[in-house]
Amino acid sequence: MNTKKGRVTVPSDVDVIEETLNIIERWGADAIRDCDGTSMPEQLRELDVKQYATYYTTRKDNAWASANPQEIQQMYLMSDMVTASAQTLTIPLMKHYYKEQLKVNTLDDIKRWWEVIDRTSGDVVAEDKWEYDAEKEAVVVLECVPFHAYTVSFLAFVIWDPVHMYNALTNEWKHEEHQMTYDVRQPKTQAYVLDKLRRWIAEHPEVDVIRFTTFFHQFTLMFDERAREKFVDWFGYSASVSPYILEQFEQEVGYRFRPEYIINQGYHNSTFCVPTKEYRDFMDFQMREVAKLVKKFVDITHEAGKEAMMFLGDHWIGTEPFGPYFQELGLDAVVGSVGDGRTLRLISDIRGVKYTEGRFLPYFFPDVFYEGGDPVQEAKVNWVSARRAILRSPLDRIGYGGYLKLALKFPDFVDYIEEVCNEFRELYEHVHSAQPMCMPFKVTILNSWGALRGWGAEMVAHALWYKQIYSYSGVLEALSGMPFDVQFISFDDILENPKVLDDAGVIINAGDAYTAFSGGDYWKDARIVSALRKFVYEGGGFIGVGEPSAAQKEGHFFQLYDVLGVDKEIGFSLSQDKYNWEEQPHFLKEELPEALQLGEEIRNIYALPDTTVLINEHQNIRFAANTYGKGKSVYLSGLPFSFENARLLYRCLFYAAGKETEMKKWYSENCNVEVNVYPNTNSYCVVNNTYEVQDTRIYTDHDVFDIRLQANEIRWFSISGEE
Amino acid sequence: MNTKKGRVTVPSDVDVIEETLNIIERWGADAIRDCDGTSMPEQLRELDVKQYATYYTTRKDNAWASANPQEIQQMYLMSDMVTASAQTLTIPLMKHYYKEQLKVNTLDDIKRWWEVIDRTSGDVVAEDKWEYDAEKEAVVVLECVPFHAYTVSFLAFVIWDPVHMYNALTNEWKHEEHQMTYDVRQPKTQAYVLDKLRRWIAEHPEVDVIRFTTFFHQFTLMFDERAREKFVDWFGYSASVSPYILEQFEQEVGYRFRPEYIINQGYHNSTFCVPTKEYRDFMDFQMREVAKLVKKFVDITHEAGKEAMMFLGDHWIGTEPFGPYFQELGLDAVVGSVGDGRTLRLISDIRGVKYTEGRFLPYFFPDVFYEGGDPVQEAKVNWVSARRAILRSPLDRIGYGGYLKLALKFPDFVDYIEEVCNEFRELYEHVHSAQPMCMPFKVTILNSWGALRGWGAEMVAHALWYKQIYSYSGVLEALSGMPFDVQFISFDDILENPKVLDDAGVIINAGDAYTAFSGGDYWKDARIVSALRKFVYEGGGFIGVGEPSAAQKEGHFFQLYDVLGVDKEIGFSLSQDKYNWEEQPHFLKEELPEALQLGEEIRNIYALPDTTVLINEHQNIRFAANTYGKGKSVYLSGLPFSFENARLLYRCLFYAAGKETEMKKWYSENCNVEVNVYPNTNSYCVVNNTYEVQDTRIYTDHDVFDIRLQANEIRWFSISGEE
Repeated sequence: MNTKKGRVTVPSDVDVIEETLNIIERWGADAIRDCDGTSMPEQLRELDVKQYATYYTTRKDNAWASANPQEIQQMYLMSDMVTASAQTLTIPLMKHYYKEQLKVNTLDDIKRWWEVIDRTSGDVVAEDKWEYDAEKEAVVVLECVPFHAYTVSFLAFVIWDPVHMYNALTNEWKHEEHQMTYDVRQPKTQAYVLDKLRRWIAEHPEVDVIRFTTFFHQFTLMFDERAREKFVDWFGYSASVSPYILEQFEQEVGYRFRPEYIINQGYHNSTFCVPTKEYRDFMDFQMREVAKLVKKFVDITHEAGKEAMMFLGDHWIGTEPFGPYFQELGLDAVVGSVGDGRTLRLISDIRGVKYTEGRFLPYFFPDVFYEGGDPVQEAKVNWVSARRAILRSPLDRIGYGGYLKLALKFPDFVDYIEEVCNEFRELYEHVHSAQPMCMPFKVTILNSWGALRGWGAEMVAHALWYKQIYSYSGVLEALSGMPFDVQFISFDDILENPKVLDDAGVIINAGDAYTAFSGGDYWKDARIVSALRKFVYEGGGFIGVGEPSAAQKEGHFFQLYDVLGVDKEIGFSLSQDKYNWEEQPHFLKEELPEALQLGEEIRNIYALPDTTVLINEHQNIRFAANTYGKGKSVYLSGLPFSFENARLLYRCLFYAAGKETEMKKWYSENCNVEVNVYPNTNSYCVVNNTYEVQDTRIYTDHDVFDIRLQANEIRWFSISGEE
Repeated sequence: MNTKKGRVTVPSDVDVIEETLNIIERWGADAIRDCDGTSMPEQLRELDVKQYATYYTTRKDNAWASANPQEIQQMYLMSDMVTASAQTLTIPLMKHYYKEQLKVNTLDDIKRWWEVIDRTSGDVVAEDKWEYDAEKEAVVVLECVPFHAYTVSFLAFVIWDPVHMYNALTNEWKHEEHQMTYDVRQPKTQAYVLDKLRRWIAEHPEVDVIRFTTFFHQFTLMFDERAREKFVDWFGYSASVSPYILEQFEQEVGYRFRPEYIINQGYHNSTFCVPTKEYRDFMDFQMREVAKLVKKFVDITHEAGKEAMMFLGDHWIGTEPFGPYFQELGLDAVVGSVGDGRTLRLISDIRGVKYTEGRFLPYFFPDVFYEGGDPVQEAKVNWVSARRAILRSPLDRIGYGGYLKLALKFPDFVDYIEEVCNEFRELYEHVHSAQPMCMPFKVTILNSWGALRGWGAEMVAHALWYKQIYSYSGVLEALSGMPFDVQFISFDDILENPKVLDDAGVIINAGDAYTAFSGGDYWKDARIVSALRKFVYEGGGFIGVGEPSAAQKEGHFFQLYDVLGVDKEIGFSLSQDKYNWEEQPHFLKEELPEALQLGEEIRNIYALPDTTVLINEHQNIRFAANTYGKGKSVYLSGLPFSFENARLLYRCLFYAAGKETEMKKWYSENCNVEVNVYPNTNSYCVVNNTYEVQDTRIYTDHDVFDIRLQANEIRWFSISGEE
């Protein structure tokens, strides 16, 4: 098996020509690319490797942007919430925004596209009760109610592309002209940009792959008056708006557009908010319209005999790969940033493209590659996390990005990535044509988004650590490398067709109360509650994490209190004596550390009388099990990712599925080691997920044996016997 | 000053006649009493001390109860919430109730007084869709919706008085006939009971004080099938119902009564629930009707030349001392159980009686007075807590209850109580005619109950420790002994007349989100929010504890986010960057321990940009200060009671009032020592609240001096100079 070459993309630049050749050789790269801020050297254009060219549809053409100010991209912004202390109130719109990034749009009718809201009463302020003071860039609210707080929702032009701005600030690019973004959805710019792509293709015959970075609409990213990040939502649609688009939207849906549909109390429809009908309508409209337009770019690319690759990031809004229109795009490939197992599967699970590529971390930027930095450590964590997921759902390629010259200053890093590239190729040979075996029941993640956001649930800013989410995101991270058929369903899926639950196996609902991931008011819908009760009663499994099924109604906070056997005391039932606090021994706690790390405290969870209490921490139940009809449930306060917790979840899944006795098949007793099985290639592997030697006992479906694995080792076996 | 006799009541019994005389002598008692389970010895009836006789209006007459089964007291109960798995559902009513305490009432029309509710949809089940199976004591719901959960609200007779039951179980009374309770509100029983009182008075000329224990309606207290406490609400009205009463109520309010007004989702209108309009109507109706009837008992008592004393407990429902009708009762005295400073002031602040008496703890029952028990320790904590409050608002008498013979087995206890009695008398001489000085601003507690519940806020089962409340109840406990004019206002008070805020000084709002003490939906009312903003903006102070002003609306969880300068991240605004985490030095943290104990964690509190962060515990703000217009605010995650925390609150109050510079007047640097000033008697005292020697520096309004106080010492000074 040739593991020496292929399936790897490396960045280059004009100042590292020789070094690029060396890296291509050492890492076995078969593709090179340019990046934002770098240029492909002429001397490498004829090299016998695939040539990727980063292509920006919406920026790097300030001449066009300046000549067409009305077609610069726009974003809905909300002013500060300002409390009136008199009957007139002046609200400066840009007080906490970065004026070099965003500029108030007064070219379009402000009375039509802006909205002033009394946030204390919730009422919209009548159009004749406010006016705009252009000099002060402020809205003056007339006849306001003292001590009510007001906001202005307004449109702003994105006069500095936020990704370009981020790159420029991170790299301290000096004297860099701020790249403006233009709106490719508008006919004039659209015609110009499509034509420009044709011209560009004609001028770049050496390019094999056009790496669109990306298409049209940037995810929501705003900077504050000190040029610090102010708001970031990788899934956010707030910067995909313009009067042109919104008028089309109105016609489409048949109701009048309100800025509040985008502003959403200032939350900007965070993926943590249960989506409103209007926001869903808008997303659907955008996805469909974006798909139509992407297709035009792809067709031009194909006509020129080149491949069209989409970067899953930056201006990716509207192209959601798990949305209803993605497979019509005709893209050849998707490339995206891989931070861990979840983000790998956000890419590798995409259907409708010929191949997928993971851009691994760290990105070669000075925030990691500085003197004294430790890029190897980051790369190691990155690789070992990603590898678990690759064994379940492989990418076709890996790659790196940024300034190669920065990486070259770290020879250990270059050595380590050489190992990674070889290991990836070897892995790929094993698994790319293999069907990983799944355990005999599905795992179903239930939240407000379902398949559309899938592995992207509980994610802020592309998988950064947040205090409020690490207790939940560990569930998906653990599952990303587990032998299960994982599916994602939404509450709407159940409302449309309760039969989606027939084959659900074990359902997981994880999240803080009232978030989109817990479900909020969906749990006040009797159809949802009764469908899930029926599912478990008839033999299904349910795992609730954090505040599952939470929505105060009719005497309970967890609406599936009877299924879960736990509820949250929110004060109203303190008068009810609670006697079930004693921890019990249980299958679920076996072979695990004494002290489980169950994440952030969820306050005041108590067990119902017949529930099996597993962990009670100061009168707060953190882990419990329950039976319900023929089914079973588990409650966990949280599941931060660790190998111990992945094992804990594994046990919970088998318990909830009623299949505890089948758990020790293709199983490693040491939780740092996992087993993956590929029946159609008669193979299985035993993989050490750590950088230390591990001893374990392995259970196959017919055998038990002990094994020692070296640091990070994967060992392959054939199912029929020989190593 | 004679501190040797008076102001003390002691219990007696037929088996401790000589010992009673000895105790009367040692403790300087001037009154003796009987208790539930004890009898006053004939030999002591002529003694030259006041004779209290415990009098029960509603029990100890099973002959009457048995002869009038329809007039036995009733309680609204809710069955278990049972989930249907088919189209017919059988709900056994008494499954988790103690059948010797409660008995289903089928004598009254069940279709009129019961209610079957689908708790999954929230709908009431039509009367013809359920029936009662008397043999099984179960309601059968016909044509129910599978996997919906149902409850039955029903009336039950209280066939064993819960206090008698509690006393019988605690003392293991053998072969005790269960005392039934009869409903004195019903005309037949009322006539009988009033006549019986007259007869009893005629037979007991030696009695000076009739100690009513109590009047008519027991607070809500249910036991489960194992005779364990199932539900206890010292403020609860669920056992004050009967069709007779409810029909009167209907006529009074002009709308149809629903059992749900009492059942309230199974919460039984816990004092932690924001009260509904219907529950307020019912309480008001009950308070007025109870007042009318109490007056009859009092008048009979007075006609016989005796005093009427009410025990504040047991069957006290409807007599709320801070309600609108209490002062019309004509009572001579109130006696109540004192557990700490708050419960002392629940009694000592009562107006409209000639004197108040505190029944101190421990009660002479075998749960404390067992071999190896430490009643002295409990008495010491009790006394030192109560004394702080006595110095602000004195009781007129103290007393003890239970079996004297049990206390006599603990000579240390008898010695210690002798000291307490002497100290109480000395204190009383100092303070009973003195007006304690108040600092120059009021402290105003704002919640849903206001003055009605006052010092009883955040209380479950008469001031037991609960995980969910100790972080809040410390605020009132600290205030109970502080030199402030403390007032209690409700949100309705503000709605009725916003001018109540004019003189509010520093307002405190403390509680978990959506409870009656935080305020719940009141905070969605723009009038409340704007009135409080105005108050602070114009110079008022605001202290929020836990989840103040919490109710998710229009982009914020804390509706006074702008006043407090903090809000709670509930997931929707994770995309917004938060930069203000650094702890600042501040007046509020001076002269306090490094590690403040701020109670239970309130999750995910963050500071707004201009707020002064004082304590940040793992990205969770626990203490912060803010300025708002001319006013100031403080946020605290909790304030469990301790002397350090009392001092912390003291600092917060002066800071919020904008009077930091005036704090060190009549001030002790050591927080274990406090100063109380009585200008009208030209005196002040310095009191050591601990049982250890304390050194401190005292600031008067004109002087500074150092002092050493012995354990528990109070030292008195005249303001004009000499000790």
